[in-house]
Amino acid sequence: MKKLINDPADVVKEALQGVAEAHGDRLRVLTDPYVVVRADAPVQGKVGLLSGGGSGHEPMHGGFVGPGMLDAACPGEVFTSPTPDQMLAGTKAIDGGAGVLHIVKNYTGDILNFEMAADLAREEGIEVEAVVIDDDVAVQDSLYTAGRRGVGATVLAEKICGAAAEQGQSLAEVADLCRKVNANARSMGMALTSCTVPAAGKPTFELGAQEMEIGIGIHGEPGRERRAVAPAREVVELLATPIVDDLPFSSGDRVLAFVNGMGGTPLIELYIVYNDLYRFLGDRGIEISRNLIGPYITSLEMQGCSITLLKLDDELTAFWDAPVNTPGLRWGA
Amino acid sequence: MKKLINDPADVVKEALQGVAEAHGDRLRVLTDPYVVVRADAPVQGKVGLLSGGGSGHEPMHGGFVGPGMLDAACPGEVFTSPTPDQMLAGTKAIDGGAGVLHIVKNYTGDILNFEMAADLAREEGIEVEAVVIDDDVAVQDSLYTAGRRGVGATVLAEKICGAAAEQGQSLAEVADLCRKVNANARSMGMALTSCTVPAAGKPTFELGAQEMEIGIGIHGEPGRERRAVAPAREVVELLATPIVDDLPFSSGDRVLAFVNGMGGTPLIELYIVYNDLYRFLGDRGIEISRNLIGPYITSLEMQGCSITLLKLDDELTAFWDAPVNTPGLRWGA
Repeated sequence: MKKLINDPADVVKEALQGVAEAHGDRLRVLTDPYVVVRADAPVQGKVGLLSGGGSGHEPMHGGFVGPGMLDAACPGEVFTSPTPDQMLAGTKAIDGGAGVLHIVKNYTGDILNFEMAADLAREEGIEVEAVVIDDDVAVQDSLYTAGRRGVGATVLAEKICGAAAEQGQSLAEVADLCRKVNANARSMGMALTSCTVPAAGKPTFELGAQEMEIGIGIHGEPGRERRAVAPAREVVELLATPIVDDLPFSSGDRVLAFVNGMGGTPLIELYIVYNDLYRFLGDRGIEISRNLIGPYITSLEMQGCSITLLKLDDELTAFWDAPVNTPGLRWGA
Repeated sequence: MKKLINDPADVVKEALQGVAEAHGDRLRVLTDPYVVVRADAPVQGKVGLLSGGGSGHEPMHGGFVGPGMLDAACPGEVFTSPTPDQMLAGTKAIDGGAGVLHIVKNYTGDILNFEMAADLAREEGIEVEAVVIDDDVAVQDSLYTAGRRGVGATVLAEKICGAAAEQGQSLAEVADLCRKVNANARSMGMALTSCTVPAAGKPTFELGAQEMEIGIGIHGEPGRERRAVAPAREVVELLATPIVDDLPFSSGDRVLAFVNGMGGTPLIELYIVYNDLYRFLGDRGIEISRNLIGPYITSLEMQGCSITLLKLDDELTAFWDAPVNTPGLRWGA
């Protein structure tokens, strides 16, 4: 295992120290338990947005804490759910009296722990709603998951709901908006290589020198199939066809196209994928009106990509375009 | 070779198509010859900023075209200098009457071609200045280089000079500023793994399973030494000590600390490196007052990192903080 780390047991702790040292202007890091919190939280009268999940997917979620996006993020150990006490501490730290929305990716551990934390927070008088993201069309059930996995749409939901909360929407409204994003988004990913969890010290799975995995999960969970590596345009067809067919996306739709790198993929390759996706969608009369290209929901050093499409209307577009100021996503601020 | 590409011969062309399709709001891509040009170029009365170099280092340079940074970037084939006709076309496309600054990384091919292009542009009546960036302390001469290589300081120079040009500084002033950035910046990089140029199809160099290369170049050129992989804090000492000793950086200095990912490095690892760098500099009384953490000058899918330190004063800090709106670097806009 070759990694830029010290003790594998300290990976998350030391990375969070780095985050705190680097971005103290926008966030602070609580350490007992670990929660990344917006510097000026709680913002009085504003709905608080909390997400979280295993580490190893950076910049998600801690890198999306700041004005216009999340108020707090709970980082678990690598590929491991955070605990209810982290989620409770985060919820309390960001409640400005307007309630807190939990944005939860659909993994069984996350679901159970967020439910427990929501119950505990409600007992303390905090209004909490939770929305589960389950946009991955690759598999119906999966390792760690009943139902579809939550992947790339999480980033888009956090950005869009963050803008709505910033503009003063109520908890019920922000939760509805989050459900709307989830309902209009579909994703699928693939891997050329595996990744190694530091504490494990060996690759999560093995892929042959000429193999790729289509429909991979963000923890290296099995996807739909293994097949021989293929040109980017075939990879795009394999990912985008089930995405487009599922919602479905149709001629005349405007979409946000999110081409995500899995952590070890050169940016030059993501632009080739984007170019092939642009053609694929253009052939079907689907217009890309917004895009996001880069490593935003990653799987350590895995090489590969995922595609997320979100059907846009004027409301979603305006919230997407609104200012955001986080370490991982920033514009207009 | 596992890559998200189609024909290896089309990598740069197709990636540039993707860039043009994705970022048409900020830039356009000339195709004969290839130049990435700011959408509203030439900006009348503003000094034009041109850079360029081999592809494979994305987002540098094409991803830094836009308001507040570069006016144009000339992309060569992967790890190959662009041609004088690209540089001439870029220079002509961005000359708004106030002259054009060429920001050139110190590689022999780049130097020769930029000199030829500057001569040709001057013959056409365009005022051109060139500044060579040579911030890499790893080796004095190198494969492809007489003198030190130009690496991470290039990103900082492009941002800072971009701000100065936007604010109406003259060509002589922007060129002086660029020399000032170069004079006050030092860098060094390392690799855990090699990278594969698509047209070559095999790794540029080989590293053993327990080896790392200290002082690596951004094309995989040899560095100072190969040694056994070590904890991140030792890696930071190996990179930061020669950087600090060279300028030198001293107690009381304020710096911009740039922790750069080589393309295949997970962000969580870069924050561990940043944490160790923060301690290393803190022990020496050097204060990090600005930072940049992520993959900005990459070497395809290479795993590793580089550290760049830039000594800041109020002038450089203000230009760094000024708004920038490019695909690769964006804030305040």
